[in-house]
Amino acid sequence: MADRIDVTEALKDLPLWGAHGGDRPAIVRNLAFADFNAAFGFMTRVALLADKVDHHPEWSNVYNRVEVLLTTHDAGGVTDRDIRMARFIDEAAGAMGAK
Amino acid sequence: MADRIDVTEALKDLPLWGAHGGDRPAIVRNLAFADFNAAFGFMTRVALLADKVDHHPEWSNVYNRVEVLLTTHDAGGVTDRDIRMARFIDEAAGAMGAK
Repeated sequence: MADRIDVTEALKDLPLWGAHGGDRPAIVRNLAFADFNAAFGFMTRVALLADKVDHHPEWSNVYNRVEVLLTTHDAGGVTDRDIRMARFIDEAAGAMGAK
Repeated sequence: MADRIDVTEALKDLPLWGAHGGDRPAIVRNLAFADFNAAFGFMTRVALLADKVDHHPEWSNVYNRVEVLLTTHDAGGVTDRDIRMARFIDEAAGAMGAK
């Protein structure tokens, strides 16, 4: 099982992410795309990776907006798996012009 | 602009849907699939239709679960567009073994 990383520590290298305000350690990012097509295209790229590495975001979508929460359930907090996923999300979102 | 339909009226023919408990008229359905792959496959089918008809669900996904909310922003409530989308969702979800 992956080791938990302190959320504040994890966020040091992820300036576009914040700490989840809820009841468990998690990191979150809100993204806005040009339209629904771009937002869902982004989600599809993330979904393909998520299914491949068996590590899934919790996320919601309203038109051009996507909110992503990452945490590792088995570990009860944020791990390297979330950081790797967050980096991929930042890369994919940047390539698709997300704000 | 499409005419608003009373939520109670709309739900009569949509037994798998409920009224949104929030601050605006909307209908909701919670779905559970076999796994993430099935859940996102379902979302992709819905997304393709949504983009085609320019009517988009508000939705969230956690692993095999999907929560969908339908409302028509322009009309400030539920319209035929939501009912048509709900019927497609029921059909697509049924075909993919959703509970």
